[in-house]
Formats: sequence, C-alpha cells, structure tokens
Amino acid sequence: MSATWAKCRSVLITGSSRGIGLHTVKQLAKSSSRPATIIATARNPTASTDLQELSKTFPGVHIVTLDVDNEQSVSSALQEVASIVGNEGLNCLINNAAIGNTTDLNTVTPEAMMKSFQVNTVAPLFVTKAFLPLLQTAAARSSGMGIHRAAIINVSSILGSITHNWAEGANFKSYAYRTSKAALNMVTRCLAADLGSDGILCMSLHPGWVRTDMGGPLADLSVQESVSALLSVLSALSEKDHGGFKDFRGNVLPW
Amino acid sequence: MSATWAKCRSVLITGSSRGIGLHTVKQLAKSSSRPATIIATARNPTASTDLQELSKTFPGVHIVTLDVDNEQSVSSALQEVASIVGNEGLNCLINNAAIGNTTDLNTVTPEAMMKSFQVNTVAPLFVTKAFLPLLQTAAARSSGMGIHRAAIINVSSILGSITHNWAEGANFKSYAYRTSKAALNMVTRCLAADLGSDGILCMSLHPGWVRTDMGGPLADLSVQESVSALLSVLSALSEKDHGGFKDFRGNVLPW
Ligand SMILES: NC(=O)c1ccc[n+]([C@@H]2O[C@H](COP(=O)([O-])OP(=O)(O)OC[C@H]3O[C@@H](n4cnc5c(N)ncnc54)[C@H](OP(=O)(O)O)[C@@H]3O)[C@@H](O)[C@H]2O)c1
Ligand SMILES: NC(=O)c1ccc[n+]([C@@H]2O[C@H](COP(=O)([O-])OP(=O)(O)OC[C@H]3O[C@@H](n4cnc5c(N)ncnc54)[C@H](OP(=O)(O)O)[C@@H]3O)[C@@H](O)[C@H]2O)c1
Repeated sequence: MSATWAKCRSVLITGSSRGIGLHTVKQLAKSSSRPATIIATARNPTASTDLQELSKTFPGVHIVTLDVDNEQSVSSALQEVASIVGNEGLNCLINNAAIGNTTDLNTVTPEAMMKSFQVNTVAPLFVTKAFLPLLQTAAARSSGMGIHRAAIINVSSILGSITHNWAEGANFKSYAYRTSKAALNMVTRCLAADLGSDGILCMSLHPGWVRTDMGGPLADLSVQESVSALLSVLSALSEKDHGGFKDFRGNVLPW
Repeated sequence: MSATWAKCRSVLITGSSRGIGLHTVKQLAKSSSRPATIIATARNPTASTDLQELSKTFPGVHIVTLDVDNEQSVSSALQEVASIVGNEGLNCLINNAAIGNTTDLNTVTPEAMMKSFQVNTVAPLFVTKAFLPLLQTAAARSSGMGIHRAAIINVSSILGSITHNWAEGANFKSYAYRTSKAALNMVTRCLAADLGSDGILCMSLHPGWVRTDMGGPLADLSVQESVSALLSVLSALSEKDHGGFKDFRGNVLPW
C-alpha cells in the first residue's frame, strides 16, 4: 500500500463488517503511514468480531453504527462522526456498502430491482448528502484535489459499465445489480458536476472481481490484493480523476 | 415521415395520452404507408380526447388501457393485445411513458429517486417482459433485424448519458430523472445482449428536447418535428443499431 495515505487525516468507510470494506479498514489501520482517524461503519458492528478486534488493536479506528438504507441511522451516525472529526471535517468518504444478486431476464423481479436501487444507488447519495457538510469543512481547509482535501469514492463495478455489457462482457447476468451500479455511476457524475467547485473530488471505482461473499470463491483477486491496489489508486487521485471511473489498477473504464 | 413503416405490421406505444406518445400514434395513423395495427396505450385513455378522436378517425388504431406501473394493468393489456395481433405477434414495442422532474442536490428526495426508477426503469423492463412472447412470435416469422421483424425501443434521454453529464451538458439538474434514464440505458443493453439471438432489436432513443408538458415551452423542437424525425430513424433501424443509443437525428450518443 502506498505510504501517501498519511495526507488524508480522516476516512469513513461504509459496509466495514466484512469483505472489501473490512479489509480497507484493516490495511489502513496497519499501515505505518495512515490517516489518524479511520471511521469504520457497519449496520451491525457487534456482529463483526474482525472489526471489533481491529478497533481494539489499532488506535484511531472508530466504529460507528450506520445502516446506509436507514435515514435515522444515517443521521445518528452523522452526529457521532461530526464529534469525532471536529473542526477538521472529513477528508474521504468511501461508499462501499452494497448488495449483490444474480437476476437474469427470467428471474428478475420488480422487488429485486427496487431493493438494489435503494441500497446501491439511493443510499450512497443520501449518505453523501448527510456527510457533505463535513466534507465541505475539510475541503475549505486545503487546496488542490484528492484525499488530502476531500473525496467521495463510490465503489461501483465494471458490471455497471453500459459500454462493457456486450459480447463476453455481458456473460454475467444481473438486471438488478447492473442497473443499480450504472445509476450509481450517474450519481457520481451528478455529484462531480455539483461539488467540483467546492474542491470535492468525486469518482466511481471498480475493485476488480474479488473473493468476498459477494464475489464468490472463483473470483480473480484476493481481497488483500484488491484493497491494496485500490488504496494505492486512491492515494494518487488528483483533479484529472474528478468525475471519472477507474478500476483497481488505475485504468479508466468507459461508462 | 419515411414511407417504410408499412413493413411493420404492428406497433404498440406506451403513454399515448399526450406528448410524444400521442403524436407518434397520430403521425403513424395519418401516414399513407403505415402499420396496419397501431396499439395506442394509456393509463387513462378516456381522459385523452385527442386519442379518442384518432381512434374514431383512423382504422386500425386500437386503444388499450395500460398503466405501465401496475402489474394487473400490464397483464390485462397483454391479453387484449394478444387478441388484436393474433398469430402475427407484435413487431414493435415503444416504451415511451415516463415521468420527468427537476431534482437538484438540495431538493432530491429518496422518494423522488425511487418513483423515477419505478416508472422510468423498472416499468419498461416489466412491460417488455410481458410482451416478449408476442415479439418473439413476430421475430420467428421473419429475418434480419428492424421494425419489420421485432424491435424494443426504449425512449431514453440525453440526460441519461453519463458521458454527456459534464460541463454544459450538466446544466440541467435532476438526480432522479438522470439516474433513471441511465439505468434504462443499462436495461436496453441487458435486453440487447439477451434478445439478439431471438432476432429482436433493442435500442435506446433520445427524442431531442421537445415542447411537451415534460419538455416545457422553451424546448428546441415541436413535437411534430421530433416525432417525424424519430419515426424516420426507427424505420431505418438495422442490425448495426442493436444495443445502441441514438438521437432523433440518427446520431449515436455515448452512454
Ligand atoms: N466482490 C466483488 O467481486 C466486487 C466486484 C465489483 C464491485 N464490488 C463492490 O464492492 C463493494 C464491496 O463488496 P464486497 O465484495 O465486499 O461485498 P460483501 O462481502 O457482500 O460485503 C457487503 C458489505 O456491505 C454491507 N451492507 C449491505 N447492506 C448494507 C446496509 N444497508 N447498511 C450498511 N452496510 C450494508 C454488508 O454489511 P453486513 O455484513 O451487515 O451485511 C457488508 O459489509 C460493493 O459496493 C460491491 O458492489 C464487489
Ligand atoms: N419532452 C422532452 O424534451 C423529452 C426529452 C428527452 C426524453 N423524453 C422522453 O420522451 C418520452 C415522452 O415524453 P413527453 O415529453 O411526451 O412527456 P409528457 O408530455 O409528460 O407525457 C408523458 C406520457 O407518459 C405517460 N405516463 C406517465 N406515467 C405513466 C404510467 N404509469 N402508465 C402509463 N403512462 C404513463 C403520461 O400519461 P398521463 O397522461 O396519463 O399522465 C403521458 O402520456 C419520455 O420517456 C421522456 O422521458 C422527453
């Protein structure tokens, strides 16, 4: 992992109970050159012994309860986070929590579609709106663009790339997941258009196909490999990445 | 309007009570070289005197009640349409019904987002799923690709283009509408990947900025101009348009 995460004083990750979210917290916490404040959020943090362990072992790892799909939970989390970060604000928000599913043309239901939109598209937008004042506070204290100032990272997927959903790229079928991530990419782009003038970088990131509960055991990458690569891409973000879509290797993906 | 619509025996349009849907029915009905069967659907057809008038004046214009957002209504409409088209099946389905709104970062609500996804994204997919057997019947009777065989046309918008939502292209703010149309474009692409082998052409179409209730009085195009151009683009569709996104002039748009 790149050492340059020290320039980011505070980071918040959603969905830190397991998978990519948990390992993002873990790798950041273990790094010698890390954000002072790591806010690991989960909807049911007590159920994640891994997460509990991390916050006991490493200083500056704060566990905050956050169900991204629950307005009340978002607003309680905001209060807690505001008092953790104080006047410095929040430098980096990683919208990682999501649900996956395989829904082909025969099995897809309106309910599956709506649930995916709710958790994977609408929730990241309203989590972002809630934490925006803290990001704006951080942005006002610095210049340039990147995780040293203020950044909103939407963890999307190559499955949300409309361009890529063709020929071999169309083999994995999921109407609900694909549409929700394409819509999340539009959220990224809308936010980028609106928040660039505040100095807040917004982007979509594809973590690769990763061996987590969601990615399954046949996936390409271990979660360690994916997270290590993601953190290094994030540490290098600058103005030119604003409003963009990159993968864990730093390659630009088409919408 | 191009004369080649005669090669399409049957077309169904959703949201035909007013705006682009109504005028699509009108221009097709008036054309000398037209589909024999024009199925004009609306959720409340008796409220549209224009539509009633058209069906009285022109033969082969069938009015069918269809609320795209109501499962029961979709399944009753399917029964009716199946008996209208009979063994020939349905050649062209135009998913035109939609709701618009302007929701900027301050005014957008989770409810507005979810309502847009429901009507603009989920409904077209489930209307398509319902009518798919009729499209497959038509597809099995012909070869090549286009409105002479079987086509699913999703009326999308340039506001759903993630690429275009930048700089001047980002001036119009609507998180709810933009995300729902980006997600609709993903639906188009998923359907195209799944239905190409059946010979069913699937595409997204942008009608231009049009003076309807949705487009408002300041829009670029009269509804007549837009519909005339759209019908000519549709009449010329072929295999190379499958899975694509075009505007009313026939220009390819980026996702
Ligand atoms: N794995 C892959 O191959 C892959 C590929 C492309 C993109 N991604 C994306 O990467 C991100 C992480 O995926 P992953 O593989 O780590 O998935 P995962 O192992 O299934 O973990 C999902 C995480 O999201 C959390 N979550 C779900 N709903 C939540 C809610 N309402 N509130 C708070 N947290 C919630 C889960 O918490 P609980 O433990 O409480 O359920 C869990 O921590 C997702 O955005 C996913 O779409 C993954
Ligand atoms: N106008 C533009 O500038 C523009 C630009 C880009 C894309 N578009 C797209 O073009 C299409 C037509 O737009 P328009 O300008 O003609 O809009 P419009 O004048 O607002 O008409 C919308 C139509 O959709 C129908 N509708 C809405 N919800 C429905 C439902 N649940 N079931 C059945 N019908 C429903 C309406 O029926 P009721 O009369 O019953 O309400 C009406 O017929 C839409 O997909 C729109 O997104 C328009």
